[in-house]
Amino acid sequence: MIIIGELINGTRKAVAAAIAGHDAEYIAKLARDQEAAGACYIDCNAGTSGDKEIEDLVWLVQVVQQEVSVPLSLDSPNPAALERALEIYTGPAPLINSITAEEERIKQVLPLLQQTESSVIALLLGDSGMPEGVAQRLANAEELVGYLEDSEIAPDRIYIDPLVVPLGTNHEAGTWVLDTILALRQSFRECHITGGLSNISYGMPNRRLLNRVFATMCVARGLDSAVIDPLDRELMASLVAAEAIAGHDEWCMNYLQAYREGRLE
Amino acid sequence: MIIIGELINGTRKAVAAAIAGHDAEYIAKLARDQEAAGACYIDCNAGTSGDKEIEDLVWLVQVVQQEVSVPLSLDSPNPAALERALEIYTGPAPLINSITAEEERIKQVLPLLQQTESSVIALLLGDSGMPEGVAQRLANAEELVGYLEDSEIAPDRIYIDPLVVPLGTNHEAGTWVLDTILALRQSFRECHITGGLSNISYGMPNRRLLNRVFATMCVARGLDSAVIDPLDRELMASLVAAEAIAGHDEWCMNYLQAYREGRLE
Repeated sequence: MIIIGELINGTRKAVAAAIAGHDAEYIAKLARDQEAAGACYIDCNAGTSGDKEIEDLVWLVQVVQQEVSVPLSLDSPNPAALERALEIYTGPAPLINSITAEEERIKQVLPLLQQTESSVIALLLGDSGMPEGVAQRLANAEELVGYLEDSEIAPDRIYIDPLVVPLGTNHEAGTWVLDTILALRQSFRECHITGGLSNISYGMPNRRLLNRVFATMCVARGLDSAVIDPLDRELMASLVAAEAIAGHDEWCMNYLQAYREGRLE
Repeated sequence: MIIIGELINGTRKAVAAAIAGHDAEYIAKLARDQEAAGACYIDCNAGTSGDKEIEDLVWLVQVVQQEVSVPLSLDSPNPAALERALEIYTGPAPLINSITAEEERIKQVLPLLQQTESSVIALLLGDSGMPEGVAQRLANAEELVGYLEDSEIAPDRIYIDPLVVPLGTNHEAGTWVLDTILALRQSFRECHITGGLSNISYGMPNRRLLNRVFATMCVARGLDSAVIDPLDRELMASLVAAEAIAGHDEWCMNYLQAYREGRLE
């Protein structure tokens, strides 16, 4: 399971304050804690915009890459910010978060993939906006992943994100994602499948319960990565169990080790 | 989700003692508690054998059917015990637990289905013994469910049980069940799919974690019933969440009601 730690995100109040005040120690601790909890990538999102975002993202990346040995996920809707972040980035091959099936976005982000060894989160968002249902998600996947593969981006560099939307806005939102994952797993066997899972519970009570149940259900359909809070111990324990059940944990070694380390409590 | 409460089972020590000592109040409370927790059927298994089992099962059924308004699941490997239990049973159409694809068992249990309106748990066990992997489970399903349907047993009376075996004995045991459920859901759309889910965790630490994660993953594949401990609050809360995510809970009404009733904590 490839965990992308989501906590360093400027849309979160405390993180926004730390970025605004250049509180490097706050950010550094958040990075270390996520790595220690099992994050394979540390996402960095400045949450600001324009030139300010470029400056903030560069600062974030500089702080975080000094603290952890895992690679970063460079998270911005602005290709110029991604480009600047890549220039000062010194760690192992990062994740670019994200590309979409929008024509303009492909044009701007693809060169960053071709010039580096970065992997990329491929959001199933097209020029016609947020997809409803499964068919449009799969059509966007065909278009975007097909285009990336034609551009010589190896499939294991591609993390397809089916776009999780809140169950509170449509009670079929969960099935859109579950059915999309199942179909993606069949069509794009060598690509990763990831997603910002906690969107499912937006506006609902007991969000953490919904989030962890949704995560395990997505694993049952073929998800092998997730953008989540790795400090949520119950979520992480559920994912360890899900991986064992899905047959990805030979002799249940990882599950038993997590048990011995007290990570399943 | 059709919950079959599993707690009245003579293989459990305290239940065996209650049966041996005809402690009706202990059994009655276990029945009431399971109904109150949301069980749709109360399983009754005497755990003894021969004539003793017939006598014990009759006593159990008489005690339990006085206490609850939900139907019972009459659970015995002995067709003679099932027949006697059906004779004294007075509740709504029960579940017969179980029939298998074994020739002898079909011959003995099928008449009980034809003479009553009972539903039945159809274990995917054939004359060649416990199936390994997915293919043999599906072959047993084709044979057994096909035979039941040819015998005019309506598909919604059939609860197919893919046979859950411990992850501790084979780390692919989870995928056997998950893949079988997915295929069954496609081939037998109108049948129910159930199973004794806690077998998955036999011999492993943190069994309740594995059980509830497995349950939600099975729902993600198409399971719509389960033989479980309805007094396990975390398991039941996970199943409420799983049903909402699987799109079986319009407007998430059931999830929100469970929240208001404090059942998600």
